[in-house]
Amino acid sequence: MVPHLTTALNGPLLTLEQRLLESMPKIEHWFRSQWLEYGAPFYASVDLRNAGFKLAPVDTNLFPGGFNNLNPDFLPLCIQAAMVAVEKICPDARRLLVIPENHTRNTFYLRNVYALTHILRQAGLEVRIGSISPDITEPTFLETHDGHSILLEPVQRKGNRLVLDNFDSCAILLNNDLSGGIPEILQNLEQSLIPPLHAGWATRRKSQHFAAYDRVIAEFAKLIDIDPWLLNPYFDTCTELDFHARVGEDRLAAKVETLLARIRSKYEEYGVTQEPFVIVKADAGTYGMGIMTVKSPEDVLDLNRKQRNKMSVIKEGLKVSEVILQEGVYTFEHLNEAVAEPVVYMMDHFVVGGFYRVHTSRGVDENLNAPGMHFEPLAFETPCSTPDCAGAPDAVPNRFYAYGVVARLALLAAAIELQETDPDQ
Amino acid sequence: MVPHLTTALNGPLLTLEQRLLESMPKIEHWFRSQWLEYGAPFYASVDLRNAGFKLAPVDTNLFPGGFNNLNPDFLPLCIQAAMVAVEKICPDARRLLVIPENHTRNTFYLRNVYALTHILRQAGLEVRIGSISPDITEPTFLETHDGHSILLEPVQRKGNRLVLDNFDSCAILLNNDLSGGIPEILQNLEQSLIPPLHAGWATRRKSQHFAAYDRVIAEFAKLIDIDPWLLNPYFDTCTELDFHARVGEDRLAAKVETLLARIRSKYEEYGVTQEPFVIVKADAGTYGMGIMTVKSPEDVLDLNRKQRNKMSVIKEGLKVSEVILQEGVYTFEHLNEAVAEPVVYMMDHFVVGGFYRVHTSRGVDENLNAPGMHFEPLAFETPCSTPDCAGAPDAVPNRFYAYGVVARLALLAAAIELQETDPDQ
Repeated sequence: MVPHLTTALNGPLLTLEQRLLESMPKIEHWFRSQWLEYGAPFYASVDLRNAGFKLAPVDTNLFPGGFNNLNPDFLPLCIQAAMVAVEKICPDARRLLVIPENHTRNTFYLRNVYALTHILRQAGLEVRIGSISPDITEPTFLETHDGHSILLEPVQRKGNRLVLDNFDSCAILLNNDLSGGIPEILQNLEQSLIPPLHAGWATRRKSQHFAAYDRVIAEFAKLIDIDPWLLNPYFDTCTELDFHARVGEDRLAAKVETLLARIRSKYEEYGVTQEPFVIVKADAGTYGMGIMTVKSPEDVLDLNRKQRNKMSVIKEGLKVSEVILQEGVYTFEHLNEAVAEPVVYMMDHFVVGGFYRVHTSRGVDENLNAPGMHFEPLAFETPCSTPDCAGAPDAVPNRFYAYGVVARLALLAAAIELQETDPDQ
Repeated sequence: MVPHLTTALNGPLLTLEQRLLESMPKIEHWFRSQWLEYGAPFYASVDLRNAGFKLAPVDTNLFPGGFNNLNPDFLPLCIQAAMVAVEKICPDARRLLVIPENHTRNTFYLRNVYALTHILRQAGLEVRIGSISPDITEPTFLETHDGHSILLEPVQRKGNRLVLDNFDSCAILLNNDLSGGIPEILQNLEQSLIPPLHAGWATRRKSQHFAAYDRVIAEFAKLIDIDPWLLNPYFDTCTELDFHARVGEDRLAAKVETLLARIRSKYEEYGVTQEPFVIVKADAGTYGMGIMTVKSPEDVLDLNRKQRNKMSVIKEGLKVSEVILQEGVYTFEHLNEAVAEPVVYMMDHFVVGGFYRVHTSRGVDENLNAPGMHFEPLAFETPCSTPDCAGAPDAVPNRFYAYGVVARLALLAAAIELQETDPDQ
């Protein structure tokens, strides 16, 4: 079952998907040359928004937490891609220590850890899960929402190595996005950390990612001769903000106005009748905290206390002083009455599956990955690598091919971003 | 549906499969280090024989011709592996010229060409099929047995390049095993030939392959502490034969006797009650021509005219003067009343699927890939990469894991063989 795209499929999206399809050999050739130059992250997920007239990534997660939502039919694809990733990043590894998030009570997240470690074991690694949570002081069996049992063990620091009882691994896979900063126990380790520490939200900035994405799209759009805006949300940043103390609101409002004007002009060019909107969110951090939908400059001037509180802290209580303003992209994909947002999963530079976040109580202009949000995952029914070039551009496998291309463009941006922000370079 | 293994699963095979399963991380780690040293062939298929007490490759084909027999569910796995193969061997390639076998009337073979080119197109290449057959003098549409249409075009030599009308490719993929020698049109090309010309039967020798396999297995058996014989058929060679003129029969008979004695001694060690046998086949060549089953030295002395004719020529009328004597491995896998032989398909170093050759009218000690042979392909129902370590060793996915391991051992031997026989080294 694929969400029905409510917008008529005869406008720019059809043109865009048609262009992606007919350019497939050119696109794949270009990706090959890019991956020779930039090493893909070990894994990633990309949230896409499909507005009918536009298809764009809105978030690139380097610590994906929804492997449990993928179609089990594509497990072999994950295993094969994991093998490639391991070969590239740590070919000598026999053992892998996986460090998950600390929220050990989220049984859905635990199911992700279960799915991820299963893939890695099938790829031929000895895998154990080491927790850096203060709650895990001894080997602890936890149960996923669907009754699988996983063992979390407290990590031990021995010199410059992180070990478990009778388990010293050559590499450590982080599934913890370091939103709360880099804990001391992870600093100055001699083992390889995958992804590297600077991929965590302690140092990563969304604006750096989208700056790299800008450049990727500029080149890609030229390659297949399209307007880069069709794949790229406009963005801007605003720093030195203090929502509590109401510092910087004017600057933010002015930037909102400029951004809305730019979007409005594009909407006019393409005959889009919807109202432009902007998403303001913390430049560092994830989990949809510190995020708001803005349709006019006044929206950021008239924040009430509750809204200011909501904007001023993100995960782990971190204070927000830098935000990214991102062109809002309407979600026009629906499943029955619910809004659906595609999420694409990748290992190394391969798309290995994805799912729709289907959410009944949210609007088409809202962030679907928000606190307290309950979404129903709907696994993609086909992988993103099997377009039917003879079929209609909106045929199911072709829609997925388009998703896969845009997700890989975001992945390439992440690769460039990580190379540019590497402290050792 | 998986062929039922008629032998009781509590003997050495259980032990062997158990050992492979419990050694999985060690095995995969070892393979990773091997593939760092040796480049895998672009593609290959390996014929296995499962005797219950022994699981061994009997033939490694570097121009696999049965992609049409794979489970369509694993197409994404093929595409992903093809992407890896292309990245490694010809990352710059946009276009690929595929050169198939000349037997253009075999509509099942044409279906293989259709399946193979579909995979390569899905991996993002522009693919066209260039024939070197004298029968193809203009672009010709041919129909596969199930109604798909494929276009074969006559190749043109332009200087040191092989081209089609409006199609000059950076690389050429051979799906033609060159049994009849290397045609002049393929010599001294400046384009990359994949696999290289010396992988063809014009120069390749089975005995070189199995000599490399001997060394691979010696190391592998030490790694997981098993008797190498459990994965390795004994073999010997005999040269300067002329079956027509009855030259060399005595030498061949003596070698058969020695080989049978070695097998008999192993059978005694393992309490195997079957009668040992030897397969004598042309050291160069394929398609099951020039092949016979031998149970005593007399069997090669008492050849009648018809048998001598059968042994003395292989595909394309080539004369046989060198043979390989290979320990016969019984096939104890059955589907209903029919004998079944697993065939594993690989692209780059990944197992991408396989099928059983199911043949109703052949015995357990006969070659199943023989002229006039009609087999029913039965696609593997799971890929070979998803063992269920918690399941019984003879659980279906575990049997396939064992197949995948042994097929990759043969693939590694082929990689070493190609490196050793490379005329440019």
